[in-house]
Amino acid sequence: MTFADEDDITESAARRWATARPGRAAEVMSALVRHLHAFAREVRLTEDELTAAADWLAAAGHACDGERQEFVLASDVLGLSRLVVQLDDRLRDGATPATLMGPFHIDGSPTVPYGHDMSGGAPGEPLFLTGTVTDTDGKPLTDVVLDVWHADADGAYTSRIPESDEVRLRAKYRTRQDGTFCVRTIVPRAYSIPMDGPVGALVRTTDIDPHHAPHIHCLVDHPGHEKLVTILYQQDSEFLDSNVVFATRPELITAFTRHPPGPAPDGSTLDRPFRHATYDFVLQPRADGRR
Amino acid sequence: MTFADEDDITESAARRWATARPGRAAEVMSALVRHLHAFAREVRLTEDELTAAADWLAAAGHACDGERQEFVLASDVLGLSRLVVQLDDRLRDGATPATLMGPFHIDGSPTVPYGHDMSGGAPGEPLFLTGTVTDTDGKPLTDVVLDVWHADADGAYTSRIPESDEVRLRAKYRTRQDGTFCVRTIVPRAYSIPMDGPVGALVRTTDIDPHHAPHIHCLVDHPGHEKLVTILYQQDSEFLDSNVVFATRPELITAFTRHPPGPAPDGSTLDRPFRHATYDFVLQPRADGRR
Repeated sequence: MTFADEDDITESAARRWATARPGRAAEVMSALVRHLHAFAREVRLTEDELTAAADWLAAAGHACDGERQEFVLASDVLGLSRLVVQLDDRLRDGATPATLMGPFHIDGSPTVPYGHDMSGGAPGEPLFLTGTVTDTDGKPLTDVVLDVWHADADGAYTSRIPESDEVRLRAKYRTRQDGTFCVRTIVPRAYSIPMDGPVGALVRTTDIDPHHAPHIHCLVDHPGHEKLVTILYQQDSEFLDSNVVFATRPELITAFTRHPPGPAPDGSTLDRPFRHATYDFVLQPRADGRR
Repeated sequence: MTFADEDDITESAARRWATARPGRAAEVMSALVRHLHAFAREVRLTEDELTAAADWLAAAGHACDGERQEFVLASDVLGLSRLVVQLDDRLRDGATPATLMGPFHIDGSPTVPYGHDMSGGAPGEPLFLTGTVTDTDGKPLTDVVLDVWHADADGAYTSRIPESDEVRLRAKYRTRQDGTFCVRTIVPRAYSIPMDGPVGALVRTTDIDPHHAPHIHCLVDHPGHEKLVTILYQQDSEFLDSNVVFATRPELITAFTRHPPGPAPDGSTLDRPFRHATYDFVLQPRADGRR
């Protein structure tokens, strides 16, 4: 009869979890066991600390609902999300780099026409985002879905405004025949990650600045091409470098150019100043060749 | 301006979390970052897998309530809880070894007299557990709290019986002047860890046997001595070796000896067969010298 002791417990546990199916689960779970154990051994984790960790995880679980995923946020602030994006990065031939999805995406945003104002009346400086979506050969792509979401001028997301059923600051655009798109919205503000939950409580024990530079999330989807999840950052804004979720990439920093009242990129005429950002997205072919 | 990339993201994240206070938090959090990243790199974790992990963690959080801690169970089945007990083990001079607390302990069990029947009418074969609590010099310890809990003859815990407010199969005994105690209860059954939650769903993908050999949890507490959390296992029972939570230790295996109807260890006479287990607990002095 054999019993797990300190010397063999890690290998014993890893062997058990290596029976997980499918094979990928066996690989992931047995590696998880080994790395968790290595962590516990390195810091000589105590029982009280393990209990505190279990309590923290339960509290984080209770903070999750349909519109908030505290564990995604945890993964973001630990740099794990960004690392995984990078490990998964199939970038080539000048394709637009991916970055974090973040915790605020809501499925099922309405599909809106070219130039539609997705601000839904939220106050702020008008912002136009225009550009083209092409493949890596520069060929314009038609009917690409551009799912856009961002914080308002106070730094709040629709998904974080209590009891808001309103659809605003999020919409799906489609590229026209020539691959072009035109988003109208307002200039987002820098904002703090939600600090009212278990992740915020942890961050507050550190010198980490919880702000995220002003940015616009884009999920760019077209059959036959790799789905692109990325974020456009406002050039020269604060917190680009200290990005609390490690999401900034230099290729994604974009000028939000000031314009006086007058002709706007959607063909209309504005009676007040606005800003205009341009970004050309480049999608790469699907790695698996499926269409 | 510097940006985290694949090469520097781990060190960058570990440096940030090394600002956590107090110093122990800095040590633990920066090590956690490094080990989590090493895990992600080794298995080349994908974004879909990270999302699945966040979903699993949220579901596990939602499964937690005042009487169920799914993350403790997860830590148990991954061998992490047992490793931490072992790392924390201050065992010396023949003191009784510790093992897992498990997820089923309920605070505030009633204090009951010597020989009290804690089965609360639960059906099963009567079991007496008697013994002495001493220090490592063999000196009997008086007024030691022996907090006992275990599963019933169907393998269920009070804390897992829906809507049970009943106090049964758990009680606090106190040692008498001579250090002796006498618990009366019923013989517990082997049982499966709860398989109706996210941990069960994971275990079900493996060849792991979810059963836990018949056992009695004991929390032995006396001022001036290290609190002992341990489990007594029934000798010759099934699942001792395959213990799903890695909790068995050879020193904790105890005979549950059969007796015919007649005089019982509490001084009474039983009209039916019963079992009798004896165990002498040895507590070591508190490591920090406090009383």
